[in-house]
Amino acid sequence: MQEIEVVRIKEDVQLKDPILIVGLPGVGHVGKLVAEHLVEELDAEKILEIYSHHFPPQVLVDENSEIHLVNNEIYVCKTEKYDILALIGDHQSSSTEGHYKLCTLYLDIAREFGVKRIYTLGGFPTGQLTYSDEVLGAVNNIELVEQLKEHGVTFKENEPGGGIVGASGLLLGMSKLKHIDAACLMGLTSGYLVDPKSAQSLLKVICKILEIDIDVGPLEERAKEMEKIVARLKEVEQQQKGIPDMNSVKDDDLRYIG
Amino acid sequence: MQEIEVVRIKEDVQLKDPILIVGLPGVGHVGKLVAEHLVEELDAEKILEIYSHHFPPQVLVDENSEIHLVNNEIYVCKTEKYDILALIGDHQSSSTEGHYKLCTLYLDIAREFGVKRIYTLGGFPTGQLTYSDEVLGAVNNIELVEQLKEHGVTFKENEPGGGIVGASGLLLGMSKLKHIDAACLMGLTSGYLVDPKSAQSLLKVICKILEIDIDVGPLEERAKEMEKIVARLKEVEQQQKGIPDMNSVKDDDLRYIG
Amino acid sequence: MQEIEVVRIKEDVQLKDPILIVGLPGVGHVGKLVAEHLVEELDAEKILEIYSHHFPPQVLVDENSEIHLVNNEIYVCKTEKYDILALIGDHQSSSTEGHYKLCTLYLDIAREFGVKRIYTLGGFPTGQLTYSDEVLGAVNNIELVEQLKEHGVTFKENEPGGGIVGASGLLLGMSKLKHIDAACLMGLTSGYLVDPKSAQSLLKVICKILEIDIDVGPLEERAKEMEKIVARLKEVEQQQKGIPDMNSVKDDDLRYIG
Amino acid sequence: MQEIEVVRIKEDVQLKDPILIVGLPGVGHVGKLVAEHLVEELDAEKILEIYSHHFPPQVLVDENSEIHLVNNEIYVCKTEKYDILALIGDHQSSSTEGHYKLCTLYLDIAREFGVKRIYTLGGFPTGQLTYSDEVLGAVNNIELVEQLKEHGVTFKENEPGGGIVGASGLLLGMSKLKHIDAACLMGLTSGYLVDPKSAQSLLKVICKILEIDIDVGPLEERAKEMEKIVARLKEVEQQQKGIPDMNSVKDDDLRYIG
Repeated sequence: MQEIEVVRIKEDVQLKDPILIVGLPGVGHVGKLVAEHLVEELDAEKILEIYSHHFPPQVLVDENSEIHLVNNEIYVCKTEKYDILALIGDHQSSSTEGHYKLCTLYLDIAREFGVKRIYTLGGFPTGQLTYSDEVLGAVNNIELVEQLKEHGVTFKENEPGGGIVGASGLLLGMSKLKHIDAACLMGLTSGYLVDPKSAQSLLKVICKILEIDIDVGPLEERAKEMEKIVARLKEVEQQQKGIPDMNSVKDDDLRYIG
Repeated sequence: MQEIEVVRIKEDVQLKDPILIVGLPGVGHVGKLVAEHLVEELDAEKILEIYSHHFPPQVLVDENSEIHLVNNEIYVCKTEKYDILALIGDHQSSSTEGHYKLCTLYLDIAREFGVKRIYTLGGFPTGQLTYSDEVLGAVNNIELVEQLKEHGVTFKENEPGGGIVGASGLLLGMSKLKHIDAACLMGLTSGYLVDPKSAQSLLKVICKILEIDIDVGPLEERAKEMEKIVARLKEVEQQQKGIPDMNSVKDDDLRYIG
Repeated sequence: MQEIEVVRIKEDVQLKDPILIVGLPGVGHVGKLVAEHLVEELDAEKILEIYSHHFPPQVLVDENSEIHLVNNEIYVCKTEKYDILALIGDHQSSSTEGHYKLCTLYLDIAREFGVKRIYTLGGFPTGQLTYSDEVLGAVNNIELVEQLKEHGVTFKENEPGGGIVGASGLLLGMSKLKHIDAACLMGLTSGYLVDPKSAQSLLKVICKILEIDIDVGPLEERAKEMEKIVARLKEVEQQQKGIPDMNSVKDDDLRYIG
Repeated sequence: MQEIEVVRIKEDVQLKDPILIVGLPGVGHVGKLVAEHLVEELDAEKILEIYSHHFPPQVLVDENSEIHLVNNEIYVCKTEKYDILALIGDHQSSSTEGHYKLCTLYLDIAREFGVKRIYTLGGFPTGQLTYSDEVLGAVNNIELVEQLKEHGVTFKENEPGGGIVGASGLLLGMSKLKHIDAACLMGLTSGYLVDPKSAQSLLKVICKILEIDIDVGPLEERAKEMEKIVARLKEVEQQQKGIPDMNSVKDDDLRYIG
């Protein structure tokens, strides 16, 4: 197995001006939830699997006790208006170097398919358990700001203050050097928990941008379960007037991502 | 010395449909104990030594004050029914990248010898000091589940929940990509201690699978010593109603692995 | 994107006996503040951008919500007496290996432009909140000591006791092997805070060395703000007779570097 | 600068059956103290400097405020009986991979000069502040045991229990694979402090082995100073009945190594 190995599931994929959507694990798993929801609801077809030495040396076990090696995957979904490439996965790179190498590959693939626009999806940690449906944006070309504002994205000077770390940021930065327009869209989230509620807000924005209409049902369900957990955490917080104690929530509550 | 260096101790080894057994250090050293026991009891012959930059920069000292550089080794044992390749060793890779590179090598070696089935042995940490003789399985081909159930292996949806990390998992995942059937067999163990008792349970299962009959004597002895330690730990736990304090056990008690 | 990628913004840059000034992030951001101030006040022109796998996988967001990939940059400023190359940046290397590789590149660039003298700028942590305008020096050629003393640099036996770590040190060490004279100039600073006041002291020394006269206004302003923070920290210290508690200072106070 | 760069200070060095002595930083700096003492007292001549990406990105500052890039160095000293190569240095490798690569280089150099015997020097941590003049040995060829016992080296089954980590161990392991005899000699030391007293004991043994007679004066002096520190630590220990508190000893006391 090579340092990075691309397994092409389907050859000769032809796309018309596709848009790349990136939803890898990250803050509140917001981006991952949204992108996986899109893949499921849009009957997307897997065209690529990416394996790498830069992912953890790990397999995940499914409901049949069958394993798969952790990877990233690219799906294609054809909507009325746009051809969409969706990049999802089990993990981001474990190493700094791997982040750069994998994003270089992802950008090469994007260019191979003629991608002209990239949206990376993520969460923006507020440190607060209060809910907000705000979606914050950052762009690699200032001309995108006005377009995205029209779809409900907000922009704040120098935010996030610590920059954007990982594939969501790196793909913006690297595509800037290659003159491909890209924006990072971040659902506001506590940063403590997997956040399907923030994912719903982000999903609505991305649906407007992509001019699609999809069922938010499954996310809705998850969001309701999570709201109960948040309510419990807030109670604890009230009592302790401090940092919410993650240990007071049963582990199982947090096992949302499959 | 190269990044990975293979020293062939014996050339021209011919095997008939061999099975690869992997028992490297890990949770409770369960897999290592079982595989080393097999190597010893079956009068296995060493055919390969593997040295690597990805192992710790360390030598181990034997009873004669003679050292050897930490490595992994492959033995051959010919049983009535099967030719067995056993992979054992002092350490797993220290680096993520090394895990992938070494497992790539191990799989290349397996294919060179015509291996059609791989069993990786390990421990499944329960966090409990109570004993269970259960052996949990995970497979890289769903067809193996029924076969293994017949030999007493149990399967649980999505378990282990955190996946399988290290060579035991990686070899399953990578052999899946090469269409070699593989299963990981895990003895349940506390996760706190070297566990020869769990190794006994796992050994029984693997003996059924391999249709061999071997002496569990030495493991029995170790298991009894360890039971005494566990009893002491449980006492401490009773008193403290908390996490067992490893410091209350003498270091020597834990030096089981040679 | 390669491991290290150099983007030439301007070709055919001709310089006469240029001096290289290096001000990357480090203790108190003293070197960074001084070098960025020089670049701004001397209307420097950017000629090179350096991107690397050894920088964090991160983009920074500006006041227009536009991002840039973290990098290092080289500017040229032509003063009355000297042509100056200024190396500034968002980050130093995240890895040991990267430090060596990037400094090798910086030295290659320096030699390409015919640099005969290098000054690396940094901070020397005192652990004290009391202010000192001292600038400590270390050289890679003993003949520089007397010259620098004339410009107000002080030298102390075996100081800094722990050596000089990162690009500031490495460039001295590597240029010694290539017979290029280099000195590290360090403003004394607490080590707890971004320190524009120490940067002012270091700026005065470097201005004498370069025989330039520049406006310290912006640094002055920042220094005054920081003095207020230090005053507050000292109060806290008085009360606690201990280590200053960084949490008692609002985060925003520390966001000095743009 | 390459990953590993060898600077030959002197060409055409001819040695007769040389012995390689290795004294790099480690437990109690015992090996380093002994090897540096030999280099000084035997008027050794430097023949090689080794620089590497695997050393920390650091320069050290001497008494004249002049720096040098951290490195390893090889000296030659010709004694009545033996030609000796001494490997000393500021640091060992910072990375696992670097340990292997540097030791591979050192072994290549040893073979280039026709080295037939290697002694690596180090400390064996006892965790006790009580003094012992014992020197523990481990070998890569069991035939060395008897020879070394005659010179006062002691051997204990499976000791050190954790093996030997770093260059001292690795060189033994790697030279075993190349059929070069090597032994590691370890002065017993607390493990808390630089230990010139343990170095004296080790020096006596190595002098017997090499059949040389050298002045232990400078080590004696350092040992006396260190004895005072140990006495103070023991007092503290008496009072606290616990782990010695390193903070109660002034930093300067510990700056022994130049």
